[in-house]
Parts: sequence; C-alpha cells; structure tokens
Amino acid sequence: MDFILILDILGVVAFSISGALAGIRKRLDPFGILIIAFVTSVGGGTLRDVLLQTEVVWLTNMLYVYTILLFSVIAMLFRERLNFFRKSLFLFDTLGIGLYTVVGVEKALQADLHPIICIAFGTMSACFGGVIRDILCNEIPIIFRQEIYATACIMGGAFYFGLYYFNTPNGIIFVVSFAVVIIIRLLAVVFKISLPNIYESKTKDE
Amino acid sequence: MDFILILDILGVVAFSISGALAGIRKRLDPFGILIIAFVTSVGGGTLRDVLLQTEVVWLTNMLYVYTILLFSVIAMLFRERLNFFRKSLFLFDTLGIGLYTVVGVEKALQADLHPIICIAFGTMSACFGGVIRDILCNEIPIIFRQEIYATACIMGGAFYFGLYYFNTPNGIIFVVSFAVVIIIRLLAVVFKISLPNIYESKTKDE
Amino acid sequence: MDFILILDILGVVAFSISGALAGIRKRLDPFGILIIAFVTSVGGGTLRDVLLQTEVVWLTNMLYVYTILLFSVIAMLFRERLNFFRKSLFLFDTLGIGLYTVVGVEKALQADLHPIICIAFGTMSACFGGVIRDILCNEIPIIFRQEIYATACIMGGAFYFGLYYFNTPNGIIFVVSFAVVIIIRLLAVVFKISLPNIYESKTKDE
Repeated sequence: MDFILILDILGVVAFSISGALAGIRKRLDPFGILIIAFVTSVGGGTLRDVLLQTEVVWLTNMLYVYTILLFSVIAMLFRERLNFFRKSLFLFDTLGIGLYTVVGVEKALQADLHPIICIAFGTMSACFGGVIRDILCNEIPIIFRQEIYATACIMGGAFYFGLYYFNTPNGIIFVVSFAVVIIIRLLAVVFKISLPNIYESKTKDE
Repeated sequence: MDFILILDILGVVAFSISGALAGIRKRLDPFGILIIAFVTSVGGGTLRDVLLQTEVVWLTNMLYVYTILLFSVIAMLFRERLNFFRKSLFLFDTLGIGLYTVVGVEKALQADLHPIICIAFGTMSACFGGVIRDILCNEIPIIFRQEIYATACIMGGAFYFGLYYFNTPNGIIFVVSFAVVIIIRLLAVVFKISLPNIYESKTKDE
Repeated sequence: MDFILILDILGVVAFSISGALAGIRKRLDPFGILIIAFVTSVGGGTLRDVLLQTEVVWLTNMLYVYTILLFSVIAMLFRERLNFFRKSLFLFDTLGIGLYTVVGVEKALQADLHPIICIAFGTMSACFGGVIRDILCNEIPIIFRQEIYATACIMGGAFYFGLYYFNTPNGIIFVVSFAVVIIIRLLAVVFKISLPNIYESKTKDE
C-alpha cells in the first residue's frame, strides 16, 4: 500500500507539472494554473475512488495537495526553462499515464474486480485527468488526437495481469507495466505508429 | 429486479451500437470506438448509481462489459450495412433512451425517492450517456439540438407514475412507459414537432 | 445546520435564476431552460456531496426541486424585465458563488477536513454549477474568462478560517465570508482588476 502511495504521488508530480504547463501555455493567471494542475493530477484518481466508493484519497492525505502546490509553483518559476524543451508537456504526461495505470489497476484489484474491469480502471485513472485538462483548456482531448494513448494504458494493464498470473513479485509487476505504457507511448509517437485503419474508403463522412 | 436487468442490458445493446456508430462516423480507431461505446452505454447508469450511492452495476456484473464488447465488434464488422440505414444511429439512440428511462425511474423508486426526483433520474439515466458521447465526439449534445428529447423521457416517466398509482402490473407499466418515450420521440422527429416557442420577438440575442 | 439549509436554498434561488437566464439567452425551450437551471443550481453541491460521500441533498429534500421550478418559471415569465437589466445574470451568479462558498466550506468543515481542502470545497461548490451551465450553453466557462472569480471564492474561504480561529460566532463568519466573495468579485469587475501577469513577454504562444 505504501508503495502504491509513492507511485501515486509520483504520478501527481508528473501531472501537476503537465497541468501547470498546459495552463501556462494558455497564459492563465496563477490561480487558473493551480486549478488546471489540481484537476489534471487528481481527476482520474477521484473518478476511480468515486466509482469504487472508497474514500477520495486527496481529501484526507494532505501530501497530495502540498505536492500539487509545490510543483505548480516550480513549473511557474521555471516556465521559461521548461518551455525550452518543447516536449516537456508530452514527457510529464507520458510519465503520468504510466504511473496512474499501475495505481488504477492495483486499486481495482484490491476491490476484487474482474481483470477486464481492472484494466479499464487503470486506463480511466490514467486518461481522465488529461481529458479534463484538455476540456478546461478548450483543446480537443489528447486521447482523441493521438491513436496510441489509451491503447498504451490498456497494454500496460494487460502486461500487469500476464505477470500477476505467473506470481511475479509486485515490485516487478509495477515496474514492467509502467515501462510497457511508457515505451509503447514513446514508440508510437516517435515512429508515428497508429492502430490498423479499419476504414477501406478514403472519403470522410464529415 | 431480473426484469430490470434485462431492460438494462437491452439498453446497453442499443447504446453500444449507437456509441460505436458515432465513433465510426468520427473514424476513430477500434479502441476509440470501444471507449465511446462504453461511456455511451454506462454513462447514464453510472451517474445514477453514484448519486443513489448504490454499487455501480457494471463493476461486478461482467454481462455489461461482454455485451458492450460484443455489440461494438458487431457494429464495426457490419458498419457498411449499418451506415446504409442513415437513421440507424437515431434508431438505436431512441431505443436506448426508452429503455433507460424505465430503468432509471424504477431504480430511483426502489430507493424511495419522490416521483419528481424519480422522473429526473429516468431522464438523466437516459440522456447522460448520449451527452458524453456527443461531447467526446466534439458534437453539440443531441439533447440541445432537438427540442423533444429529454421531454420524451419526462413524459414517459410521468406515464410511469400515472399507471403506478392505478396499481398497474409492473410489466405493463414498463412496456407502456417505454412505448410513450419511443412514440413521442419518433413523432417529434417525423413531424418536426417542438415545444411552444416562448420568445415573441424574432431577433436573436446572439 | 438549519442556517446552512437557508443559505443553500438562497444559493439555489440565485443560481436557478442565473441558469434560467442563460438558457433564455440561448433561446432554449422551457424544458431546456429548466435543465440548465437545475444543473446550475445543484451541480456544485452534488459534486461536493459525492466527493464527501454524504447523501446528495436534493434527492430527499424536495425544497430544492420546488425552489428551482418556481424561480425558473418566474425567470421565464419576467424574462423581458430581467433582460432589461443587462447585468442580471452577472448579479445572480455573484450572489450564488458567495452563498455556495460559505455552504461548501461549512460542509467540508463538518466532515473534519483540512482548512485548505475546505477552501477548495467552497470554491468547487461555488464554481462548478456555473462551469456546467457554460459548457451546456456552449460558452467558454466564466471561470476562465474573468481572472478574479475562483479567486474571490478562495479569499472568502480564507476569511472564513481567519474568523474561525478567533472563535467568531457562526452567523458573523457566514455574513463576512459571503460579503468578502461578493465585494472582491464586484470590485474586480467594476475596476477590471486581475491577478498580476506572470508573463514578461507580450508574444502569445498560441
């Protein structure tokens, strides 16, 4: 459980920075940036906890709020430097989905849910914060812009259960599933891989 | 309860196909289509269960997930044929709101809520999945495009309570309420009926 | 607790009118106006209650629904007169966020949460209904259009705790916090005050 908390907080770090950067790009004021960082970080986990009807973690553990405050301020202070790396938003977003996929699958598994549902929870935990971030920033959600995004999370979740059934130790399961999400996402973006096109004709409906 | 499960699954069938068709029209990849089918099918019921603070049905009953998977794949395989009927998305959407209105009213009634609240729950269960589908597909929600949509659900819910107070057997209540929603929606679309215009002047504010 | 119910219902009055006016401006039909009034009024409180995992208030207390129905109809009947005051939507929205900030902070405090979380809950209760209203009306959320909006709620919440630690009687805390939100919001709009610009360069990223 402690290990899951650490992964979760690392995900909060990645998504606070990703959310703050998205807010900075939209030139929001400091409170606006903070709100985007907050919903990006805790959006997916909140949906997960509400659906599982367990306590929403950030309500009682102040570590979440302090982490978001700290890294939002850091992102604001070093925004010039972070912007220098044009890929920084992408990088932190990718780290975030990798971490949240593992945490989401693990928490659903603790609630004794079916593997398919657990994979869906991992994907949802990972993707939902970013969807809210993009909706609030009035962008088309990233999940619908790039083909291999939710897919990377689903693959990571599938690897989780593959290893789980071979009684692999938790630490290894977590690291491998995390790595699978990151690697698939990176390869997809670098090599512009997308899922097979199921549409024969080239004409678009709209 | 079993009867309600059957109605609910029929609604899932209708909305999985409606969601998958919406995703296919947007030319999403297979996982994207699946995600749209999933949120369209379970979105309204999930909101209903979260508000009622009862267990979210699809978490523990795998019938929901298998139904969504099956009918999404069917919609993908037969997409040419389904697209042939240009009204297919409309048809499945209409069946879905009829079924979900009945299920939503019934579940709220089981929680001993006031008839007005029950009708609101029926309407919400029916309409919310489609609203998410349209938001994710970056369309103006259908509920705001056509005048008689939520209204059909509200009418169906009102008929439910009309019959309920005359001690009508459940089966008849369900069938009649379902039929009322479908017929009002169909008539409204076929004859382009809308609610009375409350605006005297012809000028638009914006 | 009774006092909180009164504040909450006053907030429902303000937000029903604000929601109904927004729907009227979009020239929705009566049911559409009612739906916008409903979600604007109860949206923030519903999110608050779902996160706190307490009972959603409007499910069992019909006073909420009757208030929304009454004031939506009043807004529709007197829409010409209300539209005459071009600031009416702004006025009711401002009253609403003041009242809901106080109610949100108080309810989170009753759940023994940390002051920072309580202030976040006040802000969320106040702002979320308006965000849904604007999304449904296809407008950019007001919270992102005007700089001092959520900030006014955060300030009101901070005053709440300032007074709370000096053992100020509840009635005074409520009135002062409410007044702080309203005054900051009014001053910000009248004098076009915004948060300090953290962006040195004048060029926009997009």
